[in-house]
Amino acid sequence: MTSFTPLIDSLPSTVPFVGPETILRRSGIPLRARIGANESVFGPSPKAIAAMQEAALESWKYGDPEVHDLRAAIARHHGIGIENVTVGEGIDGLFGLAVRLFVEPGVTVANSFGAYPTYNFHVAGFGGNLVTTPYVNDHEDPSSLLDLAKRENARLIYFANPDNPMGTCWKAGVVQDLIDNIPAGALLMLDEAYHDFAEGSVPALDMANPNVLRFRTFSKAYGMAGVRVGYALGHPRLISAFDKIRNHFGVNRMGQAGAIAALADQAYLKSVQQRVARAREKIYAIAQFNGFGCVPSSTNFVAVDCGRDGVYARKILEGLATHGIFVRMPGVAPLNRCIRISVGNDENLAALEEALPLVVKAAG
Amino acid sequence: MTSFTPLIDSLPSTVPFVGPETILRRSGIPLRARIGANESVFGPSPKAIAAMQEAALESWKYGDPEVHDLRAAIARHHGIGIENVTVGEGIDGLFGLAVRLFVEPGVTVANSFGAYPTYNFHVAGFGGNLVTTPYVNDHEDPSSLLDLAKRENARLIYFANPDNPMGTCWKAGVVQDLIDNIPAGALLMLDEAYHDFAEGSVPALDMANPNVLRFRTFSKAYGMAGVRVGYALGHPRLISAFDKIRNHFGVNRMGQAGAIAALADQAYLKSVQQRVARAREKIYAIAQFNGFGCVPSSTNFVAVDCGRDGVYARKILEGLATHGIFVRMPGVAPLNRCIRISVGNDENLAALEEALPLVVKAAG
Repeated sequence: MTSFTPLIDSLPSTVPFVGPETILRRSGIPLRARIGANESVFGPSPKAIAAMQEAALESWKYGDPEVHDLRAAIARHHGIGIENVTVGEGIDGLFGLAVRLFVEPGVTVANSFGAYPTYNFHVAGFGGNLVTTPYVNDHEDPSSLLDLAKRENARLIYFANPDNPMGTCWKAGVVQDLIDNIPAGALLMLDEAYHDFAEGSVPALDMANPNVLRFRTFSKAYGMAGVRVGYALGHPRLISAFDKIRNHFGVNRMGQAGAIAALADQAYLKSVQQRVARAREKIYAIAQFNGFGCVPSSTNFVAVDCGRDGVYARKILEGLATHGIFVRMPGVAPLNRCIRISVGNDENLAALEEALPLVVKAAG
Repeated sequence: MTSFTPLIDSLPSTVPFVGPETILRRSGIPLRARIGANESVFGPSPKAIAAMQEAALESWKYGDPEVHDLRAAIARHHGIGIENVTVGEGIDGLFGLAVRLFVEPGVTVANSFGAYPTYNFHVAGFGGNLVTTPYVNDHEDPSSLLDLAKRENARLIYFANPDNPMGTCWKAGVVQDLIDNIPAGALLMLDEAYHDFAEGSVPALDMANPNVLRFRTFSKAYGMAGVRVGYALGHPRLISAFDKIRNHFGVNRMGQAGAIAALADQAYLKSVQQRVARAREKIYAIAQFNGFGCVPSSTNFVAVDCGRDGVYARKILEGLATHGIFVRMPGVAPLNRCIRISVGNDENLAALEEALPLVVKAAG
């Protein structure tokens, strides 16, 4: 039999990515609330939907491999150059490419313990050596992350602002300090997937800085998770490197058209932001009513603090699943005292409100 | 500045993938015939379009990361198990992953000189050592490919049947012989993107053979190039390895729904096959009228033999471009005496018929 590379052989065969469809197939319990993956139940702009439906008629054509029009629209939106923008198959796809640019066996990557697992999946996938520092007060901790990166001679630093899975956020000034203190030879991958929910969290886009790559997505506030469009912003030296390895025809045609339309409809984005803020308050209230705390959120989800350990939080999560309510939870202590509830529509949250007291009671 | 890996530094910065949109942007000449990328102008099944338009309404949801329902439909269609199927972002995306499973610097890959360049792009991208053997009579040559693989101790062998860019094809028995003679330790990547156009070219699907991976796509006969859905078939040992590295949420929701609907509409596929066969005859006739030969095609494109060298063929290609006719051509001699014309609709071929005599005359 043909040998895989030693790196491939070393990777775990377990699949960490369990979707709600899989849970449904296993349990047979119909979903009443799909509020576990930080998707936006409010959906994309109707104009984006219309653009995708129209593009479906032309879907026999490959999408533009340069993704020119969408990149130009993104560049205009941010007041930067098209050479500062690359588009990929969601942020996850871009993380795979970005990690591949810098990581080979022996290269160290610094991250927060418990931060976005898909990033770490890619670091492992290219043989990187992951080192971590704990969250502090449910925040990723910029100063200890910098210390760690310096001490361990990390080539990459991952930092999400706002954070996932805890939903916490630093002000722009703190992130700017982090940027200003990146150790020599290191690059910061700044994941801003949720920045649309967190006013004041975004430091200026400095495209002359060759040591920062910033990642954005249409999956969250723009409500297009199933469409698969994310982008990275940075110095042309960084952005052009993606062209050496990316799947040039990989961004689907409907996604390119839909993202252009979504970006043009900022009024819709604003309405989503308002609806998310209201739904967050409702989740806070439901949690409080059940004796749970909440980590104040700057995202479209809330880390609900179940007040004990990970075993108990998992009991709550599994209890909710029996009521057709799909939520997720952080993977490691102490974050895993929480369950992570994405904002839902009124129906979803009514289902949560109804089920949670029963689940808490049953959990004892 | 942060160091890329030495492998990334070694890769060329030039982008080999120039789409018709780029050509249009550069030339300003409106496209009259987009017949260069072997897309299907006949489009997807109307049922697939409807399914994608419907799925756009739910595009706030990530696609199923297991792509369960589409994999199950593919498995049923082929009479194999779901564990024999993985789905990715087009064949190109799957080639990237498949190559990554086996190739690291020092690993040798055997291919035909002038075969599908995107595959070689991925081999280079993971540091593989590409060795090639020439086409014989415009066919990829199984026996010299086997000799080469054996001599060079290749870990991977790429073989496309039917072939791209020449459109030639071997009967199933010849391919079965190739499979039966794969050297110990090697794996055959059998690209069957165009098999729907070539009856009698497909050897039986033997999913117990751990040394063959077969690649199929919805981009060609199913007319969904812009949707980005391809799949690989093989032994579970091979298929499950993709899960270690693939972008689990990468296959967009509309694509999953559209591909299921497309697969279910075999009557539409049949009608496309008939229209492609008719259009091919028309291209043969146009070529002949202009004094050009044709390589008999088993695909949805025709390699038109311009009868001289690559410089002359490029002159013809560039001449056609000035008339808004987008075609491509093979990259290396002696294949590049040809231009590659994809099947078009009546309008497209009328434009070709009108322009080609002028272009030939101007080329001298």
